[in-house]
Amino acid sequence: MKSERFDLGFRTLMHINEEAGRETYTSLKEISPDFADMLIEFPFGDIYSRQQLDIRSREIATISALTVLGYATPQLSSHIHAGLNVGLSKEEILEIIIQMSVYAGFPAAINALSAAKGVFDERARVSEPEGNAR
Amino acid sequence: MKSERFDLGFRTLMHINEEAGRETYTSLKEISPDFADMLIEFPFGDIYSRQQLDIRSREIATISALTVLGYATPQLSSHIHAGLNVGLSKEEILEIIIQMSVYAGFPAAINALSAAKGVFDERARVSEPEGNAR
Amino acid sequence: MKSERFDLGFRTLMHINEEAGRETYTSLKEISPDFADMLIEFPFGDIYSRQQLDIRSREIATISALTVLGYATPQLSSHIHAGLNVGLSKEEILEIIIQMSVYAGFPAAINALSAAKGVFDERARVSEPEGNAR
Amino acid sequence: MKSERFDLGFRTLMHINEEAGRETYTSLKEISPDFADMLIEFPFGDIYSRQQLDIRSREIATISALTVLGYATPQLSSHIHAGLNVGLSKEEILEIIIQMSVYAGFPAAINALSAAKGVFDERARVSEPEGNAR
Amino acid sequence: MKSERFDLGFRTLMHINEEAGRETYTSLKEISPDFADMLIEFPFGDIYSRQQLDIRSREIATISALTVLGYATPQLSSHIHAGLNVGLSKEEILEIIIQMSVYAGFPAAINALSAAKGVFDERARVSEPEGNAR
Amino acid sequence: MKSERFDLGFRTLMHINEEAGRETYTSLKEISPDFADMLIEFPFGDIYSRQQLDIRSREIATISALTVLGYATPQLSSHIHAGLNVGLSKEEILEIIIQMSVYAGFPAAINALSAAKGVFDERARVSEPEGNAR
Repeated sequence: MKSERFDLGFRTLMHINEEAGRETYTSLKEISPDFADMLIEFPFGDIYSRQQLDIRSREIATISALTVLGYATPQLSSHIHAGLNVGLSKEEILEIIIQMSVYAGFPAAINALSAAKGVFDERARVSEPEGNAR
Repeated sequence: MKSERFDLGFRTLMHINEEAGRETYTSLKEISPDFADMLIEFPFGDIYSRQQLDIRSREIATISALTVLGYATPQLSSHIHAGLNVGLSKEEILEIIIQMSVYAGFPAAINALSAAKGVFDERARVSEPEGNAR
Repeated sequence: MKSERFDLGFRTLMHINEEAGRETYTSLKEISPDFADMLIEFPFGDIYSRQQLDIRSREIATISALTVLGYATPQLSSHIHAGLNVGLSKEEILEIIIQMSVYAGFPAAINALSAAKGVFDERARVSEPEGNAR
Repeated sequence: MKSERFDLGFRTLMHINEEAGRETYTSLKEISPDFADMLIEFPFGDIYSRQQLDIRSREIATISALTVLGYATPQLSSHIHAGLNVGLSKEEILEIIIQMSVYAGFPAAINALSAAKGVFDERARVSEPEGNAR
Repeated sequence: MKSERFDLGFRTLMHINEEAGRETYTSLKEISPDFADMLIEFPFGDIYSRQQLDIRSREIATISALTVLGYATPQLSSHIHAGLNVGLSKEEILEIIIQMSVYAGFPAAINALSAAKGVFDERARVSEPEGNAR
Repeated sequence: MKSERFDLGFRTLMHINEEAGRETYTSLKEISPDFADMLIEFPFGDIYSRQQLDIRSREIATISALTVLGYATPQLSSHIHAGLNVGLSKEEILEIIIQMSVYAGFPAAINALSAAKGVFDERARVSEPEGNAR
């Protein structure tokens, strides 16, 4: 039986990014079940679920952080999805990343923009009517 | 005569943090006048003044970035002031920093919280009626 | 009333570094009581208290990490104390830091060695009989 | 004729990770023969071969450092092999990485866990009796 | 119509790395046309075109910076090309990267050397007479 | 008796920055005599003394690297001195740092410019005839 923190965290994660959330949890579960649970409990159960900051602002903060780190591309793509899911527009996400050129330099921003393009393209493919697929 | 980008950047900077803005500009001016102008023109004239993202969101992004960098304490303090100036509450700023513990670790978050406390205390002193000072 | 995780975390922290532990907790408590509790609960309650790795090995890992980060000097000093408290010798701590020159470069190692010296000197002063003080 | 430092370093490297050691040396040799020698001489001849710290502790320190850097995945995989070779258990290696979530954040830890899984899987495949392969 | 800064920046970029320059600009143009222009205007129009530092020295500085960042491999490859284009020899480029082992550690240097080898090999293939190709 | 590498390294270090070189060596000597020797032997004996890159270019590379690291202020100041000693002008050093705003962001560049100002001011004071002091 999982803790309350886990349940709250899981609901929060499902709300912001169900697909990548399930995927990350399942794949971590195979490597370290305890850490998979901690990922749900601490970031999503303890932090993201708090009322002190709205979820849109949280995703702005996270997209910025992951752009600055430079090496966290899978997590960045996942939170670009999350940002779109919780109401950020594509233009806003691009703008957050562009602004990071000031604080972390152009290479970090350019690589993050290319991750954003990947996410936008993927969502465009998925939402297109089947007949147009090629 | 300064460029339009400079004028726009300077107005933007004055809006978000007049005191630290003037101080940084003046002190950079002594070291490299050209770079002092670039700081006004590129980050504030080209980026912060764009309409694609509201200024409150921009400060969320910047406070996150500076927390993650870890070494940018003077800039972080200055943007905590800016965040308060453009409408972030103290609770929201603390929450942004707390969330960074997930992405950059606890030491980065703890040091940034201590910078936030420094800014909050300074503003409390300044806004207190003189008679209460001790 | 605090959670079990808090109690376990607090005992763990008291075991590895009582003085700095209390100080950090108290000072964080003034800035963000919730985050002060999270610091006890997640790193010390959830992680350090696990049996999968002995505490001496945990401090080796942490001293390495904090040396690599470069900006986390207060935390590094605190974990150099912790390392000595849980049985690492001065020579071992110096050697861990020296090895970091290979992975994070000489400046990170040199600055961390100087933090180590600060800790060793402080402990030497404290443990000296009073009559020798000058 | 190679220096004594080279010989000592080469023996040390062969002891901790013969396969990846030879591979890295050979491939660096093609790019810069001088630097290939320096890699043997300084990290392995001068540092890893010293008696001030046992080799198990050295690998704990290195796995931590490489997890924190975030971008050093090939080196991390190589030192996860090395860690196993010198006596760390899988559980201990996972635990070192999990602990790094506290100091460098969850993305660094998650990416390192996935590198660890890659190494564990590779070693499982290699050690399996041929008949079971598929 | 583009600004003077853009024109100056574009000429500068074409001078140091025409192929990668066009490619980066075109690909950024698809993601964010404004930021594509800023990349030409600020780094290349405002900075690289200044007379205070010769272009060879600028590429030494950039190759060093990108090696230290660790995650900026595409940009590093592009500036290794640029360095060769503006007169750095292969030996000098390798030596700059080797020196970075002192400041950012061996993994950053090793990964950058491998990027350099990639660039050298690519240029060797391109410059070889067709008949030798295979 | 010291090794040949030490002697070569020491001469190289004395050539580029006698004062800071002696200071760093002496102060490291108190913490870890072995590592103090390694600092002379590896960076200065093995790397800086090689003929593949002229010393002016080496200092450009190092000033860039230390600016990017962000936390290495004492080492940066020391290499700004070194840069001036081996023939870089103040304008060139400022320009190298300014260029780093493109790769590591404005906070790293601003903090490094302020370190440069500190070095320039110190050298101005030292070189002024006594009668002018005040």
